Amino acid sequence: MSRISALFNLTSHDLTDLVALANRLADAAAKASLPHFRARSLDTENKEVDGFDPVTIADRAAEQAMRDVLAVERPNDGVFGEEQERTHGTSGLTWVLDPIDGTRAFISGLPVWGTLIALDDGAEGRIGVIDQPFTGERYIGVVDGAQSRALLARDGQQTPITTRKDVPLAEATVFTTDPYIFEDAAEMACFEAVRDRARLTRYGTDCYAYALVALGTVDLVIESGLAAYDVASHVPLIRAAGGVVTDWEGNDCRWGGTALAAGSPELHEEALELLRSAS
Amino acid sequence: MSRISALFNLTSHDLTDLVALANRLADAAAKASLPHFRARSLDTENKEVDGFDPVTIADRAAEQAMRDVLAVERPNDGVFGEEQERTHGTSGLTWVLDPIDGTRAFISGLPVWGTLIALDDGAEGRIGVIDQPFTGERYIGVVDGAQSRALLARDGQQTPITTRKDVPLAEATVFTTDPYIFEDAAEMACFEAVRDRARLTRYGTDCYAYALVALGTVDLVIESGLAAYDVASHVPLIRAAGGVVTDWEGNDCRWGGTALAAGSPELHEEALELLRSAS
Repeated sequence: MSRISALFNLTSHDLTDLVALANRLADAAAKASLPHFRARSLDTENKEVDGFDPVTIADRAAEQAMRDVLAVERPNDGVFGEEQERTHGTSGLTWVLDPIDGTRAFISGLPVWGTLIALDDGAEGRIGVIDQPFTGERYIGVVDGAQSRALLARDGQQTPITTRKDVPLAEATVFTTDPYIFEDAAEMACFEAVRDRARLTRYGTDCYAYALVALGTVDLVIESGLAAYDVASHVPLIRAAGGVVTDWEGNDCRWGGTALAAGSPELHEEALELLRSAS
Repeated sequence: MSRISALFNLTSHDLTDLVALANRLADAAAKASLPHFRARSLDTENKEVDGFDPVTIADRAAEQAMRDVLAVERPNDGVFGEEQERTHGTSGLTWVLDPIDGTRAFISGLPVWGTLIALDDGAEGRIGVIDQPFTGERYIGVVDGAQSRALLARDGQQTPITTRKDVPLAEATVFTTDPYIFEDAAEMACFEAVRDRARLTRYGTDCYAYALVALGTVDLVIESGLAAYDVASHVPLIRAAGGVVTDWEGNDCRWGGTALAAGSPELHEEALELLRSAS
């Protein structure tokens, strides 16, 4: 992934306005999705013949709700969402949207799904939001030099959050979505190389695991097979909270592929070496 | 497990009072546990040398808080908790308590742990509670003949809940804690026999998965290696909501071992046959 320059520089003032907009996008998505959560008549379809990739009414409605806001407020920005075709815009800014990350959790009634919102300036992700409307948690990260910041908004309160530091792999908690997520035996071997040295492994949390890295209660997330909208929000969120997110080679992963999210640069390096030597 | 008669019959009036007490126990446990949830300085110890079984200050404080209430209000009842020695009492009633089921989730900041409270009359579980204080969800089931009932209390509202029916295994969602939970290859084969025929499998939810069976958004939970306090609450809760919980042989599992929880008798039978033929 080339690190091209931003088409223009976002000022701190711009970012404050854009964070307010990201909050309105999350509000609009929640209003569309939450009434369908745990509804008995939830309509699902199979997107893939072989697998089980449910698409719900909620998923589509939540993306449309966010697109409707952007069409009015930021008509020149690009939009890259899960459910509709990508638009490139002319401003140099792109909103990367996953209306419901963790549709399997959603249809199971498990509140570890989230609405993912990222703002990308062409060079890097600048804003990352993970919103969980049922628990009322909204994780927000802003990459803005020395003003970079991450917070958890809940119950009308905003709490600054930081990743957990000084945790070596032997004491780390590592999350992944599913032990069967990995695409082949080689990927599984890479994951197991890290897992076998970690203190604790958990499965089945989708985006929520990345939020917990930003919150500082989880140390590592390892995944593969990701699309841009699965991961774009996590990179600026965790970076703003003090952590590092790259692919399994140590490169930019904000447009998808594999992901290694760590609470500290040291832990990231330790896990990266194991992934590299196992591959 | 023999189905002996209750030492005395609990009337519906008795049960109403005992449900109110169960709510006070859950309140007391939440007050003790919740301040430690996501606290950075969370103290953990290893109970087992080989594994990782964290015991937190919160775990012990929450059990003590419940025992303190019972000592005043029901001094003649037995208490069977995770953290302290079992007492048998003289009333014929036993409270089975797990202050924090899902300690791994708890220390990871993931709100799928719960406080489990069961009331057993010597013949069967009569009350089952799964309380999740962070999300504010309290699942309560009461086994009382035609007055049996299950509900979800949240935000001051009580909503009746029932399991999902008419879901064959091919369309079912099945949960277990961890793909590596099973004690040997034979147990793993049993689980896989069911998993391979189900629509969707999820991992890593501890007691929360059983709550979702009662809620009707998950169809099956399959686990092994359970203690009484891991499962005693789930049997009356899911039964009161319309489902079935037994061990992998179809027998009473309220004192622990393996567990097969299903939303309907038909689905339970379908899964049970697969478990039996794989074992």
